[in-house]
Amino acid sequence: MNDIKFFDANGVCARHPAVAPLPHSRKIYVQGSRPDLRVPMREISQSDTPASHGGGKNPPIFVYDCSGPYTDPEAKIDLSRGLPALRQPWIEERGDTELLPAHSIRAQTSPLALPDLARLPRRAKAGRGVTQMSYARRGIITPEMEFVAIRENLNRQAWLKTLEAAGEKGQKLAARLSRQHPGDSFGAAIPTEITPAFVRDEIACGRAILPANINHPECEPMIIGRRFLTKINANIGNSALGSSIAEEVDKMTWAIRWGSDTVMDLSTGANIHDTREWILRNAPVPIGTVPIYQALEKVGGKPEELTWEIFRDTLIEQAEQGVDYFTVHAGVRLAHLPLAASRLTGIVSRGGSILAKWCRVHGQENFLYTRFEEICDILRAYDVAFSLGDGLRPGSIFDANDEAQLAELKTLGELTQIAWRHDVQTLIEGPGHVPMHLIRENMELEREWCSEAPFYTLGPLVTDISPGHDHIASAIGAAMIGWRGTAMLCYVTPKEHLGLPDKNDVKEGVIAYKLAAHAADLAKGHPGAQIRDNALSKARYEFRWEDQFNLGLDPDKARSFHDETLPADAAKSAQFCSMCGPRFCSMKITQEICKQSV
Amino acid sequence: MNDIKFFDANGVCARHPAVAPLPHSRKIYVQGSRPDLRVPMREISQSDTPASHGGGKNPPIFVYDCSGPYTDPEAKIDLSRGLPALRQPWIEERGDTELLPAHSIRAQTSPLALPDLARLPRRAKAGRGVTQMSYARRGIITPEMEFVAIRENLNRQAWLKTLEAAGEKGQKLAARLSRQHPGDSFGAAIPTEITPAFVRDEIACGRAILPANINHPECEPMIIGRRFLTKINANIGNSALGSSIAEEVDKMTWAIRWGSDTVMDLSTGANIHDTREWILRNAPVPIGTVPIYQALEKVGGKPEELTWEIFRDTLIEQAEQGVDYFTVHAGVRLAHLPLAASRLTGIVSRGGSILAKWCRVHGQENFLYTRFEEICDILRAYDVAFSLGDGLRPGSIFDANDEAQLAELKTLGELTQIAWRHDVQTLIEGPGHVPMHLIRENMELEREWCSEAPFYTLGPLVTDISPGHDHIASAIGAAMIGWRGTAMLCYVTPKEHLGLPDKNDVKEGVIAYKLAAHAADLAKGHPGAQIRDNALSKARYEFRWEDQFNLGLDPDKARSFHDETLPADAAKSAQFCSMCGPRFCSMKITQEICKQSV
Repeated sequence: MNDIKFFDANGVCARHPAVAPLPHSRKIYVQGSRPDLRVPMREISQSDTPASHGGGKNPPIFVYDCSGPYTDPEAKIDLSRGLPALRQPWIEERGDTELLPAHSIRAQTSPLALPDLARLPRRAKAGRGVTQMSYARRGIITPEMEFVAIRENLNRQAWLKTLEAAGEKGQKLAARLSRQHPGDSFGAAIPTEITPAFVRDEIACGRAILPANINHPECEPMIIGRRFLTKINANIGNSALGSSIAEEVDKMTWAIRWGSDTVMDLSTGANIHDTREWILRNAPVPIGTVPIYQALEKVGGKPEELTWEIFRDTLIEQAEQGVDYFTVHAGVRLAHLPLAASRLTGIVSRGGSILAKWCRVHGQENFLYTRFEEICDILRAYDVAFSLGDGLRPGSIFDANDEAQLAELKTLGELTQIAWRHDVQTLIEGPGHVPMHLIRENMELEREWCSEAPFYTLGPLVTDISPGHDHIASAIGAAMIGWRGTAMLCYVTPKEHLGLPDKNDVKEGVIAYKLAAHAADLAKGHPGAQIRDNALSKARYEFRWEDQFNLGLDPDKARSFHDETLPADAAKSAQFCSMCGPRFCSMKITQEICKQSV
Repeated sequence: MNDIKFFDANGVCARHPAVAPLPHSRKIYVQGSRPDLRVPMREISQSDTPASHGGGKNPPIFVYDCSGPYTDPEAKIDLSRGLPALRQPWIEERGDTELLPAHSIRAQTSPLALPDLARLPRRAKAGRGVTQMSYARRGIITPEMEFVAIRENLNRQAWLKTLEAAGEKGQKLAARLSRQHPGDSFGAAIPTEITPAFVRDEIACGRAILPANINHPECEPMIIGRRFLTKINANIGNSALGSSIAEEVDKMTWAIRWGSDTVMDLSTGANIHDTREWILRNAPVPIGTVPIYQALEKVGGKPEELTWEIFRDTLIEQAEQGVDYFTVHAGVRLAHLPLAASRLTGIVSRGGSILAKWCRVHGQENFLYTRFEEICDILRAYDVAFSLGDGLRPGSIFDANDEAQLAELKTLGELTQIAWRHDVQTLIEGPGHVPMHLIRENMELEREWCSEAPFYTLGPLVTDISPGHDHIASAIGAAMIGWRGTAMLCYVTPKEHLGLPDKNDVKEGVIAYKLAAHAADLAKGHPGAQIRDNALSKARYEFRWEDQFNLGLDPDKARSFHDETLPADAAKSAQFCSMCGPRFCSMKITQEICKQSV
């Protein structure tokens, strides 16, 4: 068992449900080219095919694993000490960064600060390029890139070889489980095998990003780009009206357990700095933020009092902490605001509305736009990636694809070029609320205007009329835009538009989006994407109930739904469930036919 | 209040949560050309725009209402007496049907039978065509067709006129709320106003069906076709392992409360006849069944013992009860079975597997295929519609769009021509499990091979890996195929593949599909579809929380989610929710900007 300590905001230690392997799952590490390059995956074991179905072994399936050390029984988790700094040696040996004598902005003196961590912040040495994009452009393959290449391949070749080594039966099984529909990737040209050099090239040209702040060495590298597996993000964070540090750390570990590839801490309430510190030190996934939120808190919530200096200092504060990507609403230009005047729902991005108010009050151009090169300099020094915010995204079907939205998108394309000149990795944020038939235009314009920088969309919701079920309305749009090439899908929870999501909402949102992202990978024809579907369907057909649960995205819920009506152990090998009962199970009848045909 | 009696299987009377108007909703009836032609709609009232947002009245919105008399406080509901037979006079005055002396198959002698109903069954007089298709082809506009035309228009012209009569402000509001994106309907050419003649013509050519068994006079007419609003179906019914008559009637009233346009009773357990009778007599929506299920029960669950005579008698029994459409798996031909041999999940349609087994055991062609013209004769005598079953639909991504599926679809196209020769209305059933990029092929082949007979699909699920969340996996496929022209979407509940859905699962499935169907209507550019989205978004922007809840598909859940963190009454007019808190509400900030600009 884990030797785990979870501390809540009051320093009370507690055990935690997020820390245990998923059922019948085992953490494995695929070894890279150096001893300290070990890429985590989740191996899901399966039971044998019952004799009634011809018998035979079923190979374990390897799936992408975002959950970090929490699901490794060997790991010792102490939230007050944070996760191991696995990237630390890689960063150090490059010799292009230096430790600062202290945090520039804020000493860790709060009573809520992490008690046991005293690591100094790191920054690029003068004149040195330390971003993954900078390395890639110089032809360097970093350990991070190799890590990502191994991770994206999901141990598929080893899986195939093991199967094929098992004689004719194994070869047939391998061929069957590997079979998948040729997808339609709209020209993404996804290679069968991801190599480190391919990762490097995609980062070099800006078509993918590898978020990896040098002050977040706890992070397991991952990549976001349309030629890779579709990723998802979960937003967490407190508001003035709810939650605590402990609850937010809890949401983070819960989100990654269910498959969130990155997490954004959107806290706007109390203790923003300390909340983020607890999250970062314990996050094995990239953490994004919207720095303007904290800057606004610093000026008492009055947008008009924001200044470049306060914002700059906030960027530095967060970059030194280790935030991997910043949403920056530099595309909300003064000239775009009149375009939003006739909207039904105005500006629905929090950051966008803050900047719009600043512009209006001062009658000046957005300082994030005018100071963009200076922002690039800061991000470049820590390898923080841009997530260029869509402050003018539509908040209703009515406002979808309107002039304001598209004018901003065009600006984001211009800013992308500037960011790339500074070797700063860049994502482009997208909507929002869009009816299905207008999704295509969003993706096509983004690719054209933003030079294929990875698109990162919030949904989109395909209707406005489903409050309470907006994770579904948006998963529809997310799957569709993911298929067309959006690289990362920002989740929406059932609480969207209604209140701050709790832990259960986080899970519902993550599962809906994991499902949408996987559907996108299937439709793109991502190599190997269908193996898991095939394995699960085979288990289903063979009435291996436990395997069906375990191969799914949510084994806990699948099992509990099944057990509501048939809780007995014997039902786990029964050739029916309560839906149709024993006489009416189509799969059972089909198998009777097959036996007669033999 | 309702004077309502709900009886459970033991005759115990109880009040019932499904029987009350939804919040701030009122049942209205739009008067047709004759006094007894009153078309129900739901009027959702709204509060005024607060003075802080410029003030002003917000017109009530009219939405489609499947819930029947249950949400009419004037109605007296006594389940043991059934609903009023609103179509009775229309059927009688046509003079082309006759009452039978008794039910042909089974007298109502069971202790579970409806106690208070003794209506004799009705059948077409010899040689008379009593199907809506027959009338349509003879140029007749039936009251049912007029009912449907009024229903599809959703009182939009009256709504517009009332608004426009309210002066300049009203005209501006009308223009704003009516604005919507031109859709992409893939050639469906949906008219702005549905006329009775248009309804007739669509039925005459087979592009739409109006399910209306002459023995189900309680049913409020509705239409299924790609040039009309996208419809959804909810499957209910017991299995050998669960549920009772009371529970199934409960699921039916619950399903229609949340918007199910038709309901299929797929009971395979005890008391199939009586369960169906209770459901039919109390259903204001068309009821579908799969008669082979009951036929199989009659032969002790052994498919090989099925005979044409038993099946024929079952058809007659159910037609006399009033079932509006029958799933008939006549496309599962003997020659198609080898095509399914290499599948991963075999035959996953219950009916399909039963017929496949019969064919195999007897080495004979499917008797539903060989007897198809006789089946047409029966359906024609009662105006039961075909839902030509896809017994060979894929049950996994692996099997999607395979030879077996497509061979059956082609056969369904041939059978459609035969059914139409007999004036029998016809739906075509479709898959199942299909990755997103293969959805288009399903729709296009169906239109081509089945001469545009309305398509009626189960999902499709766009991945296999989400047991416990398959309502979402399938809502994605449903929305996409609905956009492309599928006329009715058969829901999938969260319990799919795992167990018999309970009442809560029914609601979750219905809402997910209502949402998908509406998203399809928006994308098709269905006239007026966006009014509800616009109204809800306007309410959202103006912080009319109650209106936002009430205009949505699930006011109860929206309200309860909001109230989890902000239960106080005052929060219902607050310019924020707990998601962002008062300082960070983008809509609030935007409105501050607007005020400054004035």
